[in-house]
Amino acid sequence: MSSAQPTGDQEFGFIGIGQMGQAMVANWLALGYRVRVYNRTREKIRPLLEQGAIEATSPADAVVPGGLVMTCVSDDQALLSIFDDGEVFRRLGPQGIHVSMSTISPRTARLLAEKHNQLGGVYLASPVMGRPDTVAAKRQTFYISGPAAARHRVKPLLQAISRQVLELGDGPEAAHVAKLASNFLIATVVESLSEAFAFVEKNGLPPQTFFDTITEFLFDCFIYKGYGRHLLSGQFREPLFRLQLGLKDINLSLQSATESRTPMPFLSVLRDRYLAALAQGYGDWDWTAIALEVRRQAGLLPSQ
Amino acid sequence: MSSAQPTGDQEFGFIGIGQMGQAMVANWLALGYRVRVYNRTREKIRPLLEQGAIEATSPADAVVPGGLVMTCVSDDQALLSIFDDGEVFRRLGPQGIHVSMSTISPRTARLLAEKHNQLGGVYLASPVMGRPDTVAAKRQTFYISGPAAARHRVKPLLQAISRQVLELGDGPEAAHVAKLASNFLIATVVESLSEAFAFVEKNGLPPQTFFDTITEFLFDCFIYKGYGRHLLSGQFREPLFRLQLGLKDINLSLQSATESRTPMPFLSVLRDRYLAALAQGYGDWDWTAIALEVRRQAGLLPSQ
Repeated sequence: MSSAQPTGDQEFGFIGIGQMGQAMVANWLALGYRVRVYNRTREKIRPLLEQGAIEATSPADAVVPGGLVMTCVSDDQALLSIFDDGEVFRRLGPQGIHVSMSTISPRTARLLAEKHNQLGGVYLASPVMGRPDTVAAKRQTFYISGPAAARHRVKPLLQAISRQVLELGDGPEAAHVAKLASNFLIATVVESLSEAFAFVEKNGLPPQTFFDTITEFLFDCFIYKGYGRHLLSGQFREPLFRLQLGLKDINLSLQSATESRTPMPFLSVLRDRYLAALAQGYGDWDWTAIALEVRRQAGLLPSQ
Repeated sequence: MSSAQPTGDQEFGFIGIGQMGQAMVANWLALGYRVRVYNRTREKIRPLLEQGAIEATSPADAVVPGGLVMTCVSDDQALLSIFDDGEVFRRLGPQGIHVSMSTISPRTARLLAEKHNQLGGVYLASPVMGRPDTVAAKRQTFYISGPAAARHRVKPLLQAISRQVLELGDGPEAAHVAKLASNFLIATVVESLSEAFAFVEKNGLPPQTFFDTITEFLFDCFIYKGYGRHLLSGQFREPLFRLQLGLKDINLSLQSATESRTPMPFLSVLRDRYLAALAQGYGDWDWTAIALEVRRQAGLLPSQ
């Protein structure tokens, strides 16, 4: 799509300019879209203004009436606070769509969807599977769920700056549930590979040899190869995804598991693993640094 | 290789004719190899005798002096008992190779390797990654480790009846360690998918939709696709691999983790999960029936 004209809504709002929002908006601006940007901390939007973004002075000011407003913020509370005074809802109006990219609880998604519905607007869940570097390279995946017409309207915009858009049905919470469950599975891979690597090393088999064997055959896929290589590299200090953000996602999953009465013993193990890694001071390291804690508990010297 | 002449050792022994041994020996016989078979329970070898196998009246009688004797038995004790009276060692003699296919502990492998070495023979680890049905279809993978010359000599025979032979170096225990760690990883996939499926279902997202999404992208590999489909099918009664054998492997891993001082919390969770599934009477069901216990704990009706 990179050389094509903007398709669909040509002007829309974006609230929450962190690393992810920054990368996404920059890609849309480069494609010719007009993006109205708002962030609580104003200096973060400056680079985007230089690239042609339109400054919004409040969340509601980012909204194009009847149009789209995207949100990408750190957690449920930050997201809910945007809608606290009702101004965003009012300005968005009927036909307006809130495209919600944050990793949040299904409960908050249902709550917001209901509020939007009351005013004729639509909540569309579209959490991002990716990190700032993959987002910048347009390699992230969007999960989306919500009313079919809204998905149809928003999809071209998401496709223009991503690897793929995977649809998860009509439920306002479905894409968020899938995101939490996907993150859980990825975290279990990091933990299980860390345990397996410690096990083989302590039983005389080099982890690299074991890794080569299983990715040749059983686990010939992106997640195992990528995280396996990362774990073997011993490079945990430069965060691609910070460990304390990993814990944030685990806690969000635990909260949803608690509310939905779903015992998940692997998830509980992961929570304690992250806490132990935080206690060792790895909070701002990459989230794969849980491997160092696995190694420490096994009496193996840190690999770096 | 199926239309080729037998390569390497044309006659060898095979001790332990369970479902796995039965399938392997039948495939070798069909290729023109002469196989001397021994099993403690004699009637199990009858079908192979009809296919041309040579009946051995004792473990030692299965041995071709200076040749190969393969073993495929249920556990460490069964394997060690074959060598108790020393007859197999004596008859195997120098140049003889013991090709050890059972899933056993690294400690037993080291012990046997030492005994073989003392008599000039060689222990070659070659555990099988596969189930009776994949073995019958020559789709299993062999992990092998041991002295290079022995690997070189045995490899063509294993290649003739398998999908691939993956080499794990010189250590007599290395291939067994890799097998235990691989089984651990596969068991973590079954558990983590079961937990994730229960989580998404209880949060309003159909597990099938979630499965389609993650295998499209994050987990586009054999183990996730195969086990995910199996879990969604709800077919747990017909065992491809019995749950109590799954527990046997988990216990073997726990024993090796204990001896090597490797804390593995996921492995401990798996142990308790298998015990709970056994307590529900799923011992002779497929090992994926742990999903029923995950569902029961979450208050979900059994899917069958």
